[in-house]
Amino acid sequence: MESCKVVENVYLLVIVTLISVLQNVFFAQKVERECKNRNMNTSAFERVSCANRNCMDAYPTFLAVMWCAGVCLSQAPAAFAGIIYLLVRQKYFIGYLGQSSQSTPGYLFGKRIIFFLSMMCIIGIFNYLLWRFYGRDYKEYVETITGAASALLLLP
Amino acid sequence: MESCKVVENVYLLVIVTLISVLQNVFFAQKVERECKNRNMNTSAFERVSCANRNCMDAYPTFLAVMWCAGVCLSQAPAAFAGIIYLLVRQKYFIGYLGQSSQSTPGYLFGKRIIFFLSMMCIIGIFNYLLWRFYGRDYKEYVETITGAASALLLLP
Amino acid sequence: MESCKVVENVYLLVIVTLISVLQNVFFAQKVERECKNRNMNTSAFERVSCANRNCMDAYPTFLAVMWCAGVCLSQAPAAFAGIIYLLVRQKYFIGYLGQSSQSTPGYLFGKRIIFFLSMMCIIGIFNYLLWRFYGRDYKEYVETITGAASALLLLP
Repeated sequence: MESCKVVENVYLLVIVTLISVLQNVFFAQKVERECKNRNMNTSAFERVSCANRNCMDAYPTFLAVMWCAGVCLSQAPAAFAGIIYLLVRQKYFIGYLGQSSQSTPGYLFGKRIIFFLSMMCIIGIFNYLLWRFYGRDYKEYVETITGAASALLLLP
Repeated sequence: MESCKVVENVYLLVIVTLISVLQNVFFAQKVERECKNRNMNTSAFERVSCANRNCMDAYPTFLAVMWCAGVCLSQAPAAFAGIIYLLVRQKYFIGYLGQSSQSTPGYLFGKRIIFFLSMMCIIGIFNYLLWRFYGRDYKEYVETITGAASALLLLP
Repeated sequence: MESCKVVENVYLLVIVTLISVLQNVFFAQKVERECKNRNMNTSAFERVSCANRNCMDAYPTFLAVMWCAGVCLSQAPAAFAGIIYLLVRQKYFIGYLGQSSQSTPGYLFGKRIIFFLSMMCIIGIFNYLLWRFYGRDYKEYVETITGAASALLLLP
């Protein structure tokens, strides 16, 4: 049952990772479809290709921060923030396609969520250092506060 | 010896990751070499650069799914699927270089392997949930079936 | 306290990952700023965009190797090599912007550090296999040697 213990601590993160992979495949298929119509509509191909590239550039950063936050502190708020990030990314991708090329959205998106996940990592490490050097463990309080704070990500 | 237990559960995945890194460096050196001859042969540089980019775009997705599958279910079939993916990627890269720019292969490759690894993740999580709520553990059966199913990836 | 044990073995790696995320955001903001001035200065936008792309292409490879090395062998030398890599990457990015487009630095950078981290993974796996089949554990010696060898990365 030892292996089940490992799964217990990460299964929400694995689910979010799977959903993100599904989304990546959806993006890639959009690119592939536009690529075949490239001669007819060059600007549409360029837009979808650029949107996909920007999403893919940010993907390893997102995965790394989400997993670190989930492992260092607690997985439920990290997975929740991950889901919100995927929604933001979907909106960004759709928004990119609809815009004319003059007024594309910026290169960055989801900054607030990446910041939240980074803060979770830092708090998790501080909590570990406190436990190591002073023997105090505030993990339960911190987890409650983090869970509550993650609801703030829902604000538009 | 605690650290050795961790290594025991992932060492095949680490080996596949190392091989994939070696392959990435091989791809990057191809790009670097063509980049120096850029003035002589622009289309060759563009092809190798595009092939490398498509491979790199899919790389984090592949790594994430392979590690999740290996951790959630069992590492041997995940590592085997990873090796097959690397072979498919090598064939894709070489094929891209040989093609004329009119008939390049698509943006996506290795869909079947990504699908197989995703299914492994899902089965692993289901197995964990069954164990948690019903106390039943089908891990051994599932591992045997997965090991047999991974042989199907060898079909062309 | 079980969760704190997990954090104990990876917290240096998490810190390096966070610093690398910070650096990614810094790079992305540079791209975003140049993107707005695109009409005024096209070559500057192309250079910063290309530098960012090359860094992002290599990023998943770096993360994968660093975490494998840290988990398989020991985290301190892996995190140290990671910090050096980030410094090299910063220098590469800045150097890319300053160069005229004729003499850009190559596509690859930080080869020595990737090689060092890969060697750490291989040594960690060999050490595990030795322990498994012969019951010998050279981990302490290996960790000392690796720590000393990591100082060689400081050589220019």
